[in-house]
Amino acid sequence: MFRTKTCGELNINNVGETVTLAGWVQTVRKFGAITFVDLRDRYGITQLLFGEDLNKDLEANPLGREFVLQATGTVTERSNKNKNIPTGEIEIILSSFKILNKSEVPPFKIEDDTDGGDDLRMKYRFLDLRRNAVKRNLELRYAVGRSSRNYLHENNFMDIETPFLIKSTPEGARDFVVPSRMNPGQFYALPQSPQTFKQLLMVSGYDRYYQIVKCFRDEDLRADRQPEFTQIDCEMCFVEQEDILSMFEGLVKRIFKDVKGIDYNESVERMSWEEAMWQFGNDKPDIRFGMQLCNLKFPAHTFSTKANISALIAANFAVFNEAETVIAIAVPGCSEYTRKQTDELTEWVKRPQIGMKGMVFIKCNADGTYKSSVDKFYNEQQLKAIADAAGAKAGDLVLILAGAEERTRKATSELRLEMGKRMGMRKENEFKLLWVLDFPLFEYAEEDNRWVARHHPFTSPKPSDIDTMISNNPAIENAAEYLKHPYANIKANAYDMVLNGNEIGGGSIRIFQRELQEKMFEALGMDAEEQQHKFGFLLGAFEYGAPPHGGIAFGFDRLCSILGGSESIRDFIAFPKNNSGRDVMIDAPSTIDAKQFDELQIKLDLK
Amino acid sequence: MFRTKTCGELNINNVGETVTLAGWVQTVRKFGAITFVDLRDRYGITQLLFGEDLNKDLEANPLGREFVLQATGTVTERSNKNKNIPTGEIEIILSSFKILNKSEVPPFKIEDDTDGGDDLRMKYRFLDLRRNAVKRNLELRYAVGRSSRNYLHENNFMDIETPFLIKSTPEGARDFVVPSRMNPGQFYALPQSPQTFKQLLMVSGYDRYYQIVKCFRDEDLRADRQPEFTQIDCEMCFVEQEDILSMFEGLVKRIFKDVKGIDYNESVERMSWEEAMWQFGNDKPDIRFGMQLCNLKFPAHTFSTKANISALIAANFAVFNEAETVIAIAVPGCSEYTRKQTDELTEWVKRPQIGMKGMVFIKCNADGTYKSSVDKFYNEQQLKAIADAAGAKAGDLVLILAGAEERTRKATSELRLEMGKRMGMRKENEFKLLWVLDFPLFEYAEEDNRWVARHHPFTSPKPSDIDTMISNNPAIENAAEYLKHPYANIKANAYDMVLNGNEIGGGSIRIFQRELQEKMFEALGMDAEEQQHKFGFLLGAFEYGAPPHGGIAFGFDRLCSILGGSESIRDFIAFPKNNSGRDVMIDAPSTIDAKQFDELQIKLDLK
Repeated sequence: MFRTKTCGELNINNVGETVTLAGWVQTVRKFGAITFVDLRDRYGITQLLFGEDLNKDLEANPLGREFVLQATGTVTERSNKNKNIPTGEIEIILSSFKILNKSEVPPFKIEDDTDGGDDLRMKYRFLDLRRNAVKRNLELRYAVGRSSRNYLHENNFMDIETPFLIKSTPEGARDFVVPSRMNPGQFYALPQSPQTFKQLLMVSGYDRYYQIVKCFRDEDLRADRQPEFTQIDCEMCFVEQEDILSMFEGLVKRIFKDVKGIDYNESVERMSWEEAMWQFGNDKPDIRFGMQLCNLKFPAHTFSTKANISALIAANFAVFNEAETVIAIAVPGCSEYTRKQTDELTEWVKRPQIGMKGMVFIKCNADGTYKSSVDKFYNEQQLKAIADAAGAKAGDLVLILAGAEERTRKATSELRLEMGKRMGMRKENEFKLLWVLDFPLFEYAEEDNRWVARHHPFTSPKPSDIDTMISNNPAIENAAEYLKHPYANIKANAYDMVLNGNEIGGGSIRIFQRELQEKMFEALGMDAEEQQHKFGFLLGAFEYGAPPHGGIAFGFDRLCSILGGSESIRDFIAFPKNNSGRDVMIDAPSTIDAKQFDELQIKLDLK
Repeated sequence: MFRTKTCGELNINNVGETVTLAGWVQTVRKFGAITFVDLRDRYGITQLLFGEDLNKDLEANPLGREFVLQATGTVTERSNKNKNIPTGEIEIILSSFKILNKSEVPPFKIEDDTDGGDDLRMKYRFLDLRRNAVKRNLELRYAVGRSSRNYLHENNFMDIETPFLIKSTPEGARDFVVPSRMNPGQFYALPQSPQTFKQLLMVSGYDRYYQIVKCFRDEDLRADRQPEFTQIDCEMCFVEQEDILSMFEGLVKRIFKDVKGIDYNESVERMSWEEAMWQFGNDKPDIRFGMQLCNLKFPAHTFSTKANISALIAANFAVFNEAETVIAIAVPGCSEYTRKQTDELTEWVKRPQIGMKGMVFIKCNADGTYKSSVDKFYNEQQLKAIADAAGAKAGDLVLILAGAEERTRKATSELRLEMGKRMGMRKENEFKLLWVLDFPLFEYAEEDNRWVARHHPFTSPKPSDIDTMISNNPAIENAAEYLKHPYANIKANAYDMVLNGNEIGGGSIRIFQRELQEKMFEALGMDAEEQQHKFGFLLGAFEYGAPPHGGIAFGFDRLCSILGGSESIRDFIAFPKNNSGRDVMIDAPSTIDAKQFDELQIKLDLK
């Protein structure tokens, strides 16, 4: 061993001990004949003192930042104590040292506040990983994994590995494929998730399965997506939705406790998908704050069911009359916004990412009067009615967007989140969990005039909807009226777990009957032959005693990033890829040899 | 929840309780008006009693093997107790039941002793997994993983995930490659191991890393190899070989304790590679028994250094004289083997797998006389000298093989293992660990007249051999005399852990100096450009303060199979592939769509 102690463990109780440390040189400070070095390892930083007697050695072997140093000496109480770090009361007066390896000057500072840009830090990721900020993230990730494993173990779950070289069955996302040398012309696919395998394990009777496992999706990468990502993947049999919800809110609460020291004792809120869409404009609402959406054209669906003002809204103002949807939010305490502030908000909603044409506001003044950008069209009493419908109180600012249904809903949802952020209502250290339930089973795919599975093709309809599904023909005769098809109203036995406005996990009770699974595949446009080719093994398995089962998968990278208070999952992955799917450090992907093409019996076909 | 209890937990203490169970029908036995059903789940088997009152229901809903059943009733003491199972003292007198799913008649028996052949069981792997024998294997696998994680956690190791989509750097084995859609013409490779990434983590200062991780090798599959396999992968920094040995024999001892209840208190034996080769004829000796090899031509290298009989061996018998090598083993207590038995052994060594031309034997009779198959060439005193050299005692049988060096050594090693097995010296419940040390760093590759790394290109030479390596030109001028090249004698700072004759883990202290790493790559025939293209990131990392480090990887599948007492790793993998790399259950690999080729910009090039 090159050391007897780490750089994080020595303190005033060790004074007098002779120790050997090994680590990296963080700083070198020379004061006349003596030199101070901060030595860093995974566990902390310890101050070394090179006395006059070592001067000659030091001159012969000068130290630089990030040199790897082995140093032996005596633990001594410091005169100039640093109370900010656990080792701050001592220093090591050295008797000898050895440079184990030198270092070039690093291209950026190995400090919390680094001067390295993103690209540089990705290229030298092995240096970036030395920074405390990144190390804390990976430690948190390990702690989340460890906590999950412990909880699941205590609850009788078994970690069972599923294969990585599987079969390509492109459904939602694109598969990464792997040419098989031993089976020329054929390909494996990397799993988008272990979905069918975990279901087979249920058929096999392994009633509580889990895995923390890499999954792969060959999709165009958005800012915060990775081609390979990690799931906490779980499945149970002989359970109903309620059992899954209670087991896995238990898991997340345990993680809160183990990793953040938070006792999350309250019960986890629940909301139907429809409620979430009406009240928050999206299916993963941040419920750390209210400011719910009020749809002024369909107020019956919103929290404020008393006021029916759709007629009023439409009557006086052509823009509102013509708009498919008009949605308001009441921002608390902002009635005194200046013209400049409301103008800036109007510009904000007009940005291409939001895409609205304008914004209407009503100031609910503290004195009970109302002032709006639509005073021409509504008198004060009418403004009050609208503000009341939006749930505004004196002192609030009502913001109203109008336009096409989906865009307006999304825009208002974004506006709500933005205002929540500006008002400090999205506190970093507050965690609010939410189950979103009762999703539609299907979505309508216009291009193919057919249904697609909103979650995935293995999700079961609600028990009460099974008959509807079995007894109706999934074909859509009249594309314009797809909403009238009985399938449009089938609800899924599915659930998402939302944390602070982020989906951290999702799952469903699965189909376990062959007939229903075939009907589902049929609805998705797969004929019998294609069903057999792609999922014959699963349909076959359902004939040999498949139990009722269901499960959930958590996005491990995302969960860690939220717990770590970051927007970016990349900060929580040791070796992430960039937006083009490249690892710029190792320079992958890259070309391969002619011999490899030859053995795999493939060639390039570049456009 | 479909059940209130599992099929494994009810016993005499639960008598009187009303319970609901769910599981699979193992057997149905009808006795007049009553029916007994054994219901099975992951936890056990419980007997259900369907009384007369349920007869009508049963007739309307007949049960069959592997039906999924939910059953409610009262726990009752059995008159006819089964002491072999924990639930054998009770049965459930049912009040109601529900068939949750039916089953076709399974294609083979779901029992320990199944009538299903290998192919059938692989095709219906989801049924095979229901068998107790297979379930026990997966449970053992989970226990080994859990025990490893706990030990490593307690020793400050951190589980850090490394990427799966990396760069193709074919060295030893072939890479599986993955075409990149976003980077047309370029490919990722699946990792053969996380080797370079774990080394980078050491450079980053994560001084104790581990991962239980899938690795991939596209090699022609032998009986017991899988294209994807799992490693317990570990790395430490600021350590020397001794630290690694002690840390990881600790790991294996902990696994013995946790998984098998075995206190492995003795210290783990150690042997140099050379010793292993001379005394056991291979580098992973089974040391549960002795029967060491005695090389009669080079007896100085063997355990019996006193007798120098090489001259005697060569003088009298032309076959021995002409043979490159003559090796003997003394099989204890077999001097009374019949002619039939020695003939059979001779046939055994002549099989193509062993490939010898014949076998010589000497019977060391209990009365002190000697009888051999070479009585023509050696007198009794000479036979005694040979037998003594082989370490034989009265009552033993000395077996001697002669021929070309490598083949004869391998054959004698096989013969030793075979005799050990026949003599019951390879006890299934005895576990003997061994470290094999001091491997050669290089092997000679005849076809390219260059060196190849015996372990891998990142393994460090012994500290005392570093100068030899740096100061000599690795080029081999005279192919015939490669053994005289200084590189031929360089020893590696490498170690293998052997359990009962199987290599379960291996690792090394790594090179951490750029100059030495470049020299290694050069020795392997890589010019500067190729080094930069393939491993530029690692060479670069070594310039920024790389610490001394080393590690080890255990073959998880193999370790589990040995602990489970099986020869086959397949039995310990939930969804293994067959010898052609196929998953016959899901039928993978398979063809992919034209659209996928198009997007990936590749096409087939079938020969």
